[in-house]
Amino acid sequence: MSPFSGSAPSTEEWRHLRLTLDAGVATVTLNRPEKLNALTFGAYADLRDLLAELSRARAVRALVLGGEGRGFCSGGDVEEIIGATLAMDTGDLLDFNRMTGQVVRALRECPFPVVAAVHGVAAGAGAVLALAADFRVADPTARFAFLFTRVGLSGGDMGAAYLLPRVVGLGHATRLLMLGEPVGAAEAERIGLISMVAEEGGAGPAAAALARRLAEGPALAHSRTKALLTAELDMPLSAAVELDAATQALLMNSADYAEFHAAFTARRPPQWRGR
Amino acid sequence: MSPFSGSAPSTEEWRHLRLTLDAGVATVTLNRPEKLNALTFGAYADLRDLLAELSRARAVRALVLGGEGRGFCSGGDVEEIIGATLAMDTGDLLDFNRMTGQVVRALRECPFPVVAAVHGVAAGAGAVLALAADFRVADPTARFAFLFTRVGLSGGDMGAAYLLPRVVGLGHATRLLMLGEPVGAAEAERIGLISMVAEEGGAGPAAAALARRLAEGPALAHSRTKALLTAELDMPLSAAVELDAATQALLMNSADYAEFHAAFTARRPPQWRGR
Amino acid sequence: MSPFSGSAPSTEEWRHLRLTLDAGVATVTLNRPEKLNALTFGAYADLRDLLAELSRARAVRALVLGGEGRGFCSGGDVEEIIGATLAMDTGDLLDFNRMTGQVVRALRECPFPVVAAVHGVAAGAGAVLALAADFRVADPTARFAFLFTRVGLSGGDMGAAYLLPRVVGLGHATRLLMLGEPVGAAEAERIGLISMVAEEGGAGPAAAALARRLAEGPALAHSRTKALLTAELDMPLSAAVELDAATQALLMNSADYAEFHAAFTARRPPQWRGR
Repeated sequence: MSPFSGSAPSTEEWRHLRLTLDAGVATVTLNRPEKLNALTFGAYADLRDLLAELSRARAVRALVLGGEGRGFCSGGDVEEIIGATLAMDTGDLLDFNRMTGQVVRALRECPFPVVAAVHGVAAGAGAVLALAADFRVADPTARFAFLFTRVGLSGGDMGAAYLLPRVVGLGHATRLLMLGEPVGAAEAERIGLISMVAEEGGAGPAAAALARRLAEGPALAHSRTKALLTAELDMPLSAAVELDAATQALLMNSADYAEFHAAFTARRPPQWRGR
Repeated sequence: MSPFSGSAPSTEEWRHLRLTLDAGVATVTLNRPEKLNALTFGAYADLRDLLAELSRARAVRALVLGGEGRGFCSGGDVEEIIGATLAMDTGDLLDFNRMTGQVVRALRECPFPVVAAVHGVAAGAGAVLALAADFRVADPTARFAFLFTRVGLSGGDMGAAYLLPRVVGLGHATRLLMLGEPVGAAEAERIGLISMVAEEGGAGPAAAALARRLAEGPALAHSRTKALLTAELDMPLSAAVELDAATQALLMNSADYAEFHAAFTARRPPQWRGR
Repeated sequence: MSPFSGSAPSTEEWRHLRLTLDAGVATVTLNRPEKLNALTFGAYADLRDLLAELSRARAVRALVLGGEGRGFCSGGDVEEIIGATLAMDTGDLLDFNRMTGQVVRALRECPFPVVAAVHGVAAGAGAVLALAADFRVADPTARFAFLFTRVGLSGGDMGAAYLLPRVVGLGHATRLLMLGEPVGAAEAERIGLISMVAEEGGAGPAAAALARRLAEGPALAHSRTKALLTAELDMPLSAAVELDAATQALLMNSADYAEFHAAFTARRPPQWRGR
């Protein structure tokens, strides 16, 4: 536990998703398989709150986000979400949409890498959750669809119009967000939307293996790499090199950096502490 | 017509390009085929003014930009433009170059998607017009050449040094803008410069079909998707998710969003109004 | 020599790298082949100072950066740099890391294109030097490895977390910087990290030929193209089109632009002066 914990207790039980913790790896599973893991208000709120909690818990060094059953996540539930928003007033509509954006910010800003394990459908908000992860490990059944315009909404949902051009370029991003058509695994890999391809049925195990490797490695270095990648999208080069310099000077005092040198000198593998 | 129209009358006749309007789709054709649609001062000015007018005219929901004859557009006319600029004073040189940049801003900021139909040569300013479009539908004869340095000018013309790295990445963009070499359709598709490939001779019809589909679909959602893609290139993530939230809350009050839900519930296709 | 030279004399002899100048092309060779051109404190400082000097010397119109022996550059020397930094105080650590960032800024901001000739290993800081170049001419033996996390440091070293996403997209950049795994020439080309492929053993000659061509061409136009590509990554579109307009108006008064028109009219090849 971090020494910088306040009075708020940790949540004991997450009702809208499944969380397991194992030696530095948190695994979050969307578990409404009968609905292709369609998101509910509760699922969004739990993702937001869980990421905030885990960001304060030093124990977590990598997170896997996956879905149970036939696919990753089919996005916001048509009945529970679209139907409900039609009855909302302006304040509630804004609060809902700000909450979903906060989930994406939490994924980008949490101090550990997030590995999305994608099989089957990743649609709507599900596609954006995968997009906001640091790694997308996908099997050949993966299908991404940013289908917001198909329901009459803007393709720029939850930061998608910010993130997607920075992952696949403005041309592909415009096509994907404007038309909302599904993108299969082969095309997704070709345009840079998939980080690693797994064999069919293997996205979950491959994502877990990657997260395990990240958690057992120099986790503080991984954490800072993610933070700089996120921050430097929003910075000029002049500021970025200053941030890099300060970060690197800090890490040159870290236990892992000294350990690398000691191990290298002794010709043995380093024993990473992640600190 | 928009209720927010001022005193300025619409232009009756465009002398430097051809405009047709058909049920929400504007088609702009560069029509100096004997000069490979080389741009003149008048053509730039008409593009700037036309896009401003169409942006106020609610009737337009998608725009196709194409060229008559053997190619899309060979860029600024060597005789009429390069020759003339050699005789210009500082103020006129600046006004001319600001005008061409305003055409690109107008293409990026107009409230409807722009589909460039590219066949044959898209060179110089012609390549930048295609680059500034939301979609580049190209046939196998398409050839892009950002040939500004070939005439002694900067490759960063009309926003190209801003746009091209965001479409194809900084490495490819540097090569294309610095060397000015032609890029054929196969390479352009591979690096993400082409959005959709059409069969030979089919760029115009394919672009028209895409524009028709965009105009008949949830056009307000398409319009906002374009606006967010354009704006969020220039925004940090924190601002982008706020803009997305406000936009989505707005669209959740739109006719098309309610129509989607009604149609989904009734198991019928939605009747989009674009409002 | 530039008329804007101050009192500081030019350095007579570069001890930590090899410099040759030939008709506008500067060739900088990292020359510790017995250490795979591992960088020392002196090499970083010389690169920083050399680029500053050459940026003031009008004679240079293109620069080739290469490595002698079996590879391009294996990055910071484990013994001389990692070992030494472990004994440094906070101020020295910051100064060292700011110096390396200044080398990258100098590569991006010098007023001539930089062509990296890459064969064999380009690792750690060596990979970032190549990344900061305008062109990466690589042969099939080229292997890029941003291996900072492998030594316990942040992948965002010397601006890498700023530059790499803008060259290959955020997905690939995250994978490369977080995991530090080597990327072979085939993958590097596919994701846009290599600008031009040379035959085995041919990276040096191909880079030299490209630099020669750049130096003998409209060099002022190349210089401004580079400057705009660098600056417009950090600018909104509205500012970029203003910068383009002012730059183009300036170059329309240049000798080379007039020469292009005269040559075109006379149906002869232009005689570029680079002014």
